[in-house]
Amino acid sequence: MRIALDAMGGDHGPAPNVAGAVQALHASPDLTLVLVGDEPAVREQLAAVGDHPADRLEVVHASQTVGMNEKPAEAMRAKPDNSIAKCWGLLAAKKVDGLVSAGNTGAVVAGGLFLRKFLKCVHRPGIATVMPTAKGRCVIMDVGANVFPKPRHLLEYGAMGSVFAKHMLGIDRPTIGLMNVGEEEGKGHDLVQETYSLFRGSNLKDRFLGNIEGRDLHAGKVDVVVTDGFVGNVIIKLSQGLFEFVMGMVGQEVIGALNQEADAAKKALHGMVQKYHYSAFGGAPLLGIDGVCIICHGSSKDRAIANAIGVAAQDVRVKLNEKIVAELETLPTTND
Amino acid sequence: MRIALDAMGGDHGPAPNVAGAVQALHASPDLTLVLVGDEPAVREQLAAVGDHPADRLEVVHASQTVGMNEKPAEAMRAKPDNSIAKCWGLLAAKKVDGLVSAGNTGAVVAGGLFLRKFLKCVHRPGIATVMPTAKGRCVIMDVGANVFPKPRHLLEYGAMGSVFAKHMLGIDRPTIGLMNVGEEEGKGHDLVQETYSLFRGSNLKDRFLGNIEGRDLHAGKVDVVVTDGFVGNVIIKLSQGLFEFVMGMVGQEVIGALNQEADAAKKALHGMVQKYHYSAFGGAPLLGIDGVCIICHGSSKDRAIANAIGVAAQDVRVKLNEKIVAELETLPTTND
Repeated sequence: MRIALDAMGGDHGPAPNVAGAVQALHASPDLTLVLVGDEPAVREQLAAVGDHPADRLEVVHASQTVGMNEKPAEAMRAKPDNSIAKCWGLLAAKKVDGLVSAGNTGAVVAGGLFLRKFLKCVHRPGIATVMPTAKGRCVIMDVGANVFPKPRHLLEYGAMGSVFAKHMLGIDRPTIGLMNVGEEEGKGHDLVQETYSLFRGSNLKDRFLGNIEGRDLHAGKVDVVVTDGFVGNVIIKLSQGLFEFVMGMVGQEVIGALNQEADAAKKALHGMVQKYHYSAFGGAPLLGIDGVCIICHGSSKDRAIANAIGVAAQDVRVKLNEKIVAELETLPTTND
Repeated sequence: MRIALDAMGGDHGPAPNVAGAVQALHASPDLTLVLVGDEPAVREQLAAVGDHPADRLEVVHASQTVGMNEKPAEAMRAKPDNSIAKCWGLLAAKKVDGLVSAGNTGAVVAGGLFLRKFLKCVHRPGIATVMPTAKGRCVIMDVGANVFPKPRHLLEYGAMGSVFAKHMLGIDRPTIGLMNVGEEEGKGHDLVQETYSLFRGSNLKDRFLGNIEGRDLHAGKVDVVVTDGFVGNVIIKLSQGLFEFVMGMVGQEVIGALNQEADAAKKALHGMVQKYHYSAFGGAPLLGIDGVCIICHGSSKDRAIANAIGVAAQDVRVKLNEKIVAELETLPTTND
């Protein structure tokens, strides 16, 4: 299979992208990567990395780059030859099966929405993210592609997130919960009330556990958390910030209270951070696109990039999109 | 001053309410408490507590109680003699300056909204909550009273939260941030875009730092976080759940890795939980009501109840509502 990597994406330029690409190639012998970006810069990094399977690695030049803080839609219009747009162009032309980018998330999403190459039955793609819970992992969708969705979109996010949980996380019959301000039916604003009814009237009803509250997410009450892109985005960034805040406090107040075993505690804490760090899973898929698109955190280092490429390759291998369409075809038709 | 306490509120019945009431009376010699609830049950608990200043303690009988899981509006209609409604009745009749309840939050808010005794210039009351941050504390408003607010409501929440931060938390010129999915102007849905403009056009503009993201909250980027009641409710419950999840992991993976100093680490961790526990501040005020209303977590024990009564008394002492009206009077008039 062939995956395009936005070699310019992220806070650290081409270096971690190229290094991550080479790691991914070594890990997956069935993979060919197309590095998209400033060719001289990419070639320079490749030379620096040294040993790499050159027969499974191509470089496509892109003369422009979208900055991490540029306004997505404007930048995509003003810079037609940017590396993100070129990745999408390769996908649209079926020259690659998927793309991976640690670049400006809004620009990556905008690129996908502009193309409108959505999967059959999908009204709006959304971003899924995997988070650690007390019982393992959960998928939360959407986390920022669609900040003002319709109920139908949320129903589809439940279906897509559930297929992702099954085939990518190995959860047999994933349960689904709707993020709300209380558990009882009728809680919350119109969007969640209407979405609740859609789930109850669909073939997902047996796995739809109804409304969940914020505290249920990390307790692992459900496998798939459905929410709008505004709330989902706040959830993932709040979780990241609070995790760092609490880790800082533990370092100061717990490890600070120790003497002989302070080093052992530090090591255990570091292991915990590594294990539960939100970048560990390897990127967030934009589901609902005809093709594979994995969005990485802008701060991604080579390991995170390699993981994300691995996830993209696995998406292709398990034919995730075919399974998503099969699931969506079972949903009742609505007016949206 | 006189405060009404819903003696039936919360998960544990009258016992922690009555015990907390007596603690609060001992702490504040200028305070008289009116315990509202099933009189025999309340008298029984008072007898069990023993020593209490009987001259500053009254009991008002309420023959009904709203359950923690009852539908708020329905319960308030079906049970006119419930303890929450009676507390509001005392406030409306100016027989008390404020009320405190650990009962069904929705019912407490509904009672206040039904009365419509809003402060001058307030269009919709909202619930403020204090959360710990890396730099101290922040106020977040609204956390659940108003899940589908208008931009004007959010502007007022910024003003009210800011007065609360100044006079109750001692923050001199509180900064204000609008919870959004990105920092740049123009991010997010219509509600936040319009709210952003309102702040920029108001006298709060110098202290309005613009949009903030989820990760900024616990980093302490602003003193007052403005958000709608849906997102705010998810934020506080998610934070509580994630805090417990991470504490559990630290207990298992960090303390589990220790030997001789495991007890010292446990003690430090316990101290940290006590210090940062979200109930430590003592209840969440429903701001914008003509009177004082403090809502406690349903799981509140006597200490949390006593703290909440202390906050209510302090609200009255510092004349918080007069200061809120003075701040709101400086806001530009809008059509909402």
